[in-house]
Amino acid sequence: MIDPQAHAEILNQALPYIQAFRGQTFVVKYGGSAMKDPHLMEGVIRNVLLLDLVGIRCILVHGGGPEIDTWLGKLGLEKKTLNGLRVTDQATMDVVEMALAGRANKALVAEVQKAGGKAIGLSGRDADLLVADQISEELGRVGNVTKVNAEVLMVATSAGFIPVVCSVATDAKKQALNVNADSAAAAIASSVGASKLILLTDTNGVLSDKDDAHSTISQLTHAEARGMLDSGKADRGMIPKLEGALFALESGVDSVHMINGGVPNALLIEVFTHSGIGTMMTRS
Amino acid sequence: MIDPQAHAEILNQALPYIQAFRGQTFVVKYGGSAMKDPHLMEGVIRNVLLLDLVGIRCILVHGGGPEIDTWLGKLGLEKKTLNGLRVTDQATMDVVEMALAGRANKALVAEVQKAGGKAIGLSGRDADLLVADQISEELGRVGNVTKVNAEVLMVATSAGFIPVVCSVATDAKKQALNVNADSAAAAIASSVGASKLILLTDTNGVLSDKDDAHSTISQLTHAEARGMLDSGKADRGMIPKLEGALFALESGVDSVHMINGGVPNALLIEVFTHSGIGTMMTRS
Amino acid sequence: MIDPQAHAEILNQALPYIQAFRGQTFVVKYGGSAMKDPHLMEGVIRNVLLLDLVGIRCILVHGGGPEIDTWLGKLGLEKKTLNGLRVTDQATMDVVEMALAGRANKALVAEVQKAGGKAIGLSGRDADLLVADQISEELGRVGNVTKVNAEVLMVATSAGFIPVVCSVATDAKKQALNVNADSAAAAIASSVGASKLILLTDTNGVLSDKDDAHSTISQLTHAEARGMLDSGKADRGMIPKLEGALFALESGVDSVHMINGGVPNALLIEVFTHSGIGTMMTRS
Amino acid sequence: MIDPQAHAEILNQALPYIQAFRGQTFVVKYGGSAMKDPHLMEGVIRNVLLLDLVGIRCILVHGGGPEIDTWLGKLGLEKKTLNGLRVTDQATMDVVEMALAGRANKALVAEVQKAGGKAIGLSGRDADLLVADQISEELGRVGNVTKVNAEVLMVATSAGFIPVVCSVATDAKKQALNVNADSAAAAIASSVGASKLILLTDTNGVLSDKDDAHSTISQLTHAEARGMLDSGKADRGMIPKLEGALFALESGVDSVHMINGGVPNALLIEVFTHSGIGTMMTRS
Amino acid sequence: MIDPQAHAEILNQALPYIQAFRGQTFVVKYGGSAMKDPHLMEGVIRNVLLLDLVGIRCILVHGGGPEIDTWLGKLGLEKKTLNGLRVTDQATMDVVEMALAGRANKALVAEVQKAGGKAIGLSGRDADLLVADQISEELGRVGNVTKVNAEVLMVATSAGFIPVVCSVATDAKKQALNVNADSAAAAIASSVGASKLILLTDTNGVLSDKDDAHSTISQLTHAEARGMLDSGKADRGMIPKLEGALFALESGVDSVHMINGGVPNALLIEVFTHSGIGTMMTRS
Amino acid sequence: MIDPQAHAEILNQALPYIQAFRGQTFVVKYGGSAMKDPHLMEGVIRNVLLLDLVGIRCILVHGGGPEIDTWLGKLGLEKKTLNGLRVTDQATMDVVEMALAGRANKALVAEVQKAGGKAIGLSGRDADLLVADQISEELGRVGNVTKVNAEVLMVATSAGFIPVVCSVATDAKKQALNVNADSAAAAIASSVGASKLILLTDTNGVLSDKDDAHSTISQLTHAEARGMLDSGKADRGMIPKLEGALFALESGVDSVHMINGGVPNALLIEVFTHSGIGTMMTRS
Repeated sequence: MIDPQAHAEILNQALPYIQAFRGQTFVVKYGGSAMKDPHLMEGVIRNVLLLDLVGIRCILVHGGGPEIDTWLGKLGLEKKTLNGLRVTDQATMDVVEMALAGRANKALVAEVQKAGGKAIGLSGRDADLLVADQISEELGRVGNVTKVNAEVLMVATSAGFIPVVCSVATDAKKQALNVNADSAAAAIASSVGASKLILLTDTNGVLSDKDDAHSTISQLTHAEARGMLDSGKADRGMIPKLEGALFALESGVDSVHMINGGVPNALLIEVFTHSGIGTMMTRS
Repeated sequence: MIDPQAHAEILNQALPYIQAFRGQTFVVKYGGSAMKDPHLMEGVIRNVLLLDLVGIRCILVHGGGPEIDTWLGKLGLEKKTLNGLRVTDQATMDVVEMALAGRANKALVAEVQKAGGKAIGLSGRDADLLVADQISEELGRVGNVTKVNAEVLMVATSAGFIPVVCSVATDAKKQALNVNADSAAAAIASSVGASKLILLTDTNGVLSDKDDAHSTISQLTHAEARGMLDSGKADRGMIPKLEGALFALESGVDSVHMINGGVPNALLIEVFTHSGIGTMMTRS
Repeated sequence: MIDPQAHAEILNQALPYIQAFRGQTFVVKYGGSAMKDPHLMEGVIRNVLLLDLVGIRCILVHGGGPEIDTWLGKLGLEKKTLNGLRVTDQATMDVVEMALAGRANKALVAEVQKAGGKAIGLSGRDADLLVADQISEELGRVGNVTKVNAEVLMVATSAGFIPVVCSVATDAKKQALNVNADSAAAAIASSVGASKLILLTDTNGVLSDKDDAHSTISQLTHAEARGMLDSGKADRGMIPKLEGALFALESGVDSVHMINGGVPNALLIEVFTHSGIGTMMTRS
Repeated sequence: MIDPQAHAEILNQALPYIQAFRGQTFVVKYGGSAMKDPHLMEGVIRNVLLLDLVGIRCILVHGGGPEIDTWLGKLGLEKKTLNGLRVTDQATMDVVEMALAGRANKALVAEVQKAGGKAIGLSGRDADLLVADQISEELGRVGNVTKVNAEVLMVATSAGFIPVVCSVATDAKKQALNVNADSAAAAIASSVGASKLILLTDTNGVLSDKDDAHSTISQLTHAEARGMLDSGKADRGMIPKLEGALFALESGVDSVHMINGGVPNALLIEVFTHSGIGTMMTRS
Repeated sequence: MIDPQAHAEILNQALPYIQAFRGQTFVVKYGGSAMKDPHLMEGVIRNVLLLDLVGIRCILVHGGGPEIDTWLGKLGLEKKTLNGLRVTDQATMDVVEMALAGRANKALVAEVQKAGGKAIGLSGRDADLLVADQISEELGRVGNVTKVNAEVLMVATSAGFIPVVCSVATDAKKQALNVNADSAAAAIASSVGASKLILLTDTNGVLSDKDDAHSTISQLTHAEARGMLDSGKADRGMIPKLEGALFALESGVDSVHMINGGVPNALLIEVFTHSGIGTMMTRS
Repeated sequence: MIDPQAHAEILNQALPYIQAFRGQTFVVKYGGSAMKDPHLMEGVIRNVLLLDLVGIRCILVHGGGPEIDTWLGKLGLEKKTLNGLRVTDQATMDVVEMALAGRANKALVAEVQKAGGKAIGLSGRDADLLVADQISEELGRVGNVTKVNAEVLMVATSAGFIPVVCSVATDAKKQALNVNADSAAAAIASSVGASKLILLTDTNGVLSDKDDAHSTISQLTHAEARGMLDSGKADRGMIPKLEGALFALESGVDSVHMINGGVPNALLIEVFTHSGIGTMMTRS
């Protein structure tokens, strides 16, 4: 048990961090087990609210593979993948959109409201927030984000709401497309001029040895990350994260952080302490 | 085929209606078969956009019984009702929220975007827009709206977005409740100071003889509508509509309109022509 | 007699036109017999109000030759012209200003007010709105507009007033000059960034054969109009209209429309229907 | 010739007056010979501009009997009066409006512009600024102001324009009525919350002996002025001035000043010096 | 040494406090030894900055007895007191103002700037911020604050500056008066609608036994504090603090806190922890 | 004694000057005997207020050598100079800051308040308004202004306050430095885009013969002033004034005026009359 003076001294030490980040925008990609465990979810959301209250504009982006899988299972629809991507026929897309925009998104919004914040849940179809192109016939309703219409995010954050965005996009015909949430978060971070993109995952950041969970690389430059991708060293699930990170860095985001959402207060450790956890990527 | 001069003369005749309604807010409850037929949906949405463009602030509210039933069926969940209300256990509530917030809502938003408007889809859980209390243990997750937090609607309409709201509410624990869409629309109309509440249905308004689809009552006072409810003359599906209408009139809404959404351009006929269709209810 | 559904469908068809023109500015040069016939005047003004209400900023510009001639006649002053321009000695100028700023202008303002709009009448001497240089000694107080001080128009339209401007300008000594109303309208359209300049006349637009009222040219490019002027094919009264149109097109106005103000709802036909009437001029 | 130091000391002495009046609104009724002599007119306008520049919002109101008479004469129309009021048939009203709105008003506007200010000329028909009722059939188009729609004045002064208003009003049918300029000025002063109403006349204020131009009463209370009216002691031309003054005082105007516009810098003497000239009326 | 997770958890626990106080105004009376020890001063200022950054508007008020005594000593002026108040002849007042407005105030401002904040130093003579009446002839230039002109504080805080106010007031002749800093802080807290008034002292709050530094009363109601004053139990230096506290509570301030400024992070402990230190006074 | 008409005519003649200067910013360096004589001080302040009221934004800058010397004397500290600059050890700096920020500054602020204006006193340490570098070890705490953070001046003037700035700056460690007031005024004038820098002195401007008080040079170009400095013709006290003037002219200030503050209404004579007094410097 910490005494009040030690307690207060820790608050005191947050001053330079708050001074440095105040007025900036952070895009937080929320995912992995932190979405399944209610206690972890509550913790992440409270961390986001604290960032918001000290003057950092936060935008939450999420996907929800397990939620989708659960509903596909209940509906007796088979899950198919191709090169690690979900093959999404129209019937699957209907379930994807429902599970993300109708379930996962509203659960996160409710969590923010419960913690005393104000949130609006958005799909990429709302106000054409995320515009995408279909990747291929084979993958079906899977898309790449090609444009972000950020006006609705600006309106929401200016009015004090935390936007919670799910990874469903719109195509030119205003039909839904399934997009990767890491990529969507990176595209949003680029378009709103975020200073940080924080990816919450189930691993301890980027690993030098993908079989060793403790081999976290704490700092990674753009060139090094590009090297990992080019050399094929990156794990399949890591590819869209690294590509999103590279794109974000190229578009002016100062740093991309990949941290383990399962660690309590992971966001606060990363933002407000000297230690940091996981991997921080910067341009150089 | 109408010649250009007759055409222009009709536009010309819209002037006094636009002058009268400009700057007011209309809440449009969208429902019935107009939600199932894509062509009718497109027509209603275009009508709403036209109202919006001539300076009437529009808020769309919708439910989606058929969509819910479809998914319950696919999931093998039995539909149960009690006195005409859907008995909603937690498993059913999950499907209700998904079907409304994740499907019907986004389909309507996409339709507005396709027609060239800007829309944001909202659930009653977003920003605690609709707060409700559970009605009874027997009915399960079914609630009555007790409060409307309209700030998010104001922010959206001020920024030029058309809010599209589905009939899911939040309870004190931020859990989802299933609420009647007619009642939700009435509660919203009251809280935003709307001048008109327009209920799109599958019938030609309030009927004097519920078995005669042509027995539409074109004008109905608050007292007369109260009488219909008290005398038990009102059809079961009509009860929440009439109660919502009475509540809205008591809260300052000028008139409540019940019109057949299956009639092409029903909204424009009701708002912009001398004829009107369906039933108009006023305080006296 | 048109039934309500056909009626509403016509309103419905106005949607894409309103979406296209909303937020733009139209300068309407009002003239010809539409100014003498009270019924036509009322019709034009109601059309302008409708444009205004659907979000198009309208500025009315007018001259008033017949009104001037009437008063010259009553005062026993002879009307003199030189190459089709009114020779304007000081005594004539006094009558011109009175007839335009004191009669025609106020009659138009009153008509807007009667139709439920808000209008301010302005002379080019108000706030130095129209600055002109005298053309020649022989023509007397006749000028060419050299500068438009549009601030007062912006203040008026921003506050929801429709400006009604008569074709009297100020010279460097703040003395009144008589200017051509078509030219004044073109100068104003250029300076306020109007998208359309609409000239209401007594003919059916530009005629390919000036003796055949039915030989209207429906589309005319800048080059073709220049050709008509250079070849001397243009009617004397048509010259300032065509020159104003060319100037407006060169200054960024998207299109110039010359239409017959005597046709009921001419403005609405031109703006809101596929048909159009009269002549539309564009850059290419 | 005054030396620079005496000169500067006089400016210095203006400080407390400016501090007292800054932010207030003055309505100046401009009339009498100050309107006929160009040199006097220039002087008055420069005085008004100076008031405006030190932070006093000024509104100019004017009539123009001599200008009207001139044009009636030229047109061979007979001038008729009844109890000191101009009998105004429609033909006369046309001339009244032309002479006021088209001549006198624009001449004053031009004078403000020449002196480096920004002015907008307004008739009471613009934006329904002055609404009046016809007094009687016998007097024809003569009215009493019953309502002032001051919005256009607020818009103009907020944007830095000096409004110049002529004494023509609108009736319920938006037809022009001839109104007394002193009464119009009083009505405007009341409706805009002016602190001072200043009437420029040809006499040295209110006289105790109407045959002695030097018998100026320097201070007059509301009760005393009422007494003069009731006792029939007031000159015919003085009646509307005194009645306007009484109405203005009753409506919250702090003081009404009646001063000789023929005295150079009369406005500055009255506002900025200890001496004052003419008559000042206050509630008590 | 605390590990990063414990560290972050403590930040996490600040959330409800920030949510509760955000948008409120705190007036902090800075005094005692915390003003003499540079290290303590730096600590207090950093605490104030942290409050400011999480959205609490802070206003600092200070006196400076020791600084004054130092300069009186250097100048060979004798310090005289009467009933615990400094007898302030004009020569002493000159030194008081210099020492407070010219030394202590600017040292505090510099400390805020050094910590990365923005501060403006103000005397009660700036913009007539503190208006006071002289208490008695005997005490000389000593006053009681009778009015606070808070506009300058609002302008400063709205622009993001932290106002630092010293306890010098102005009298009706705009001459300086020496006022008690605790009273000045209470008057300011009342006039700006502060929710908390925090008095930093050299003792551990209000003591039940004035000779026992550890007999701190942690909670005190208005009635109890009034009782201490009436019973004469309060220490002389405590009297203006308690009277200021009572006045502040009566004027709508929610709570008054008396804490030991010598304890590191005393402000943060009091505001952000469950423990609190010193004495908190509330209405009941 | 001047009669009211001559009086008013002089006010009338101020019109073109007010029109020319309205909306501009003047920086007035206040110094010399005008600071010692209470009557002169009152006069200068009233002149500044008048400038302010006619729409000229005024910023007052002052030093206070005599005040400093008085307190050094009282404290028994020796005054040392080196090449005309005050050698300022830390003990002296403490006195400089107290005398300027705590005495002279507050006296001026009080004078503005007494005259009915609103003033805020500022040191260069407030909001880091004046940032300086130490000149040399020998001179001690003497600095050259290297940066002006003008935000606080903008906030103050926008809110209607007259800023009164004393010549104390901050260094990188937020310690006080003594700076020349003429140079500080020039730096401020440059950074706020002032049109005039007016230096009040004890002489009649720049003299062609420094021993002849009547040899005032009324106009001086930048080149001529540079010549005076280069040729060593300038008096020691004149050097920083001329250098400040040159810097100001190079930075966009239109004109620099050096006038005798001992002449009653010197500011008004210089700004509002044809005569002017003292020396006016312009770029060419």
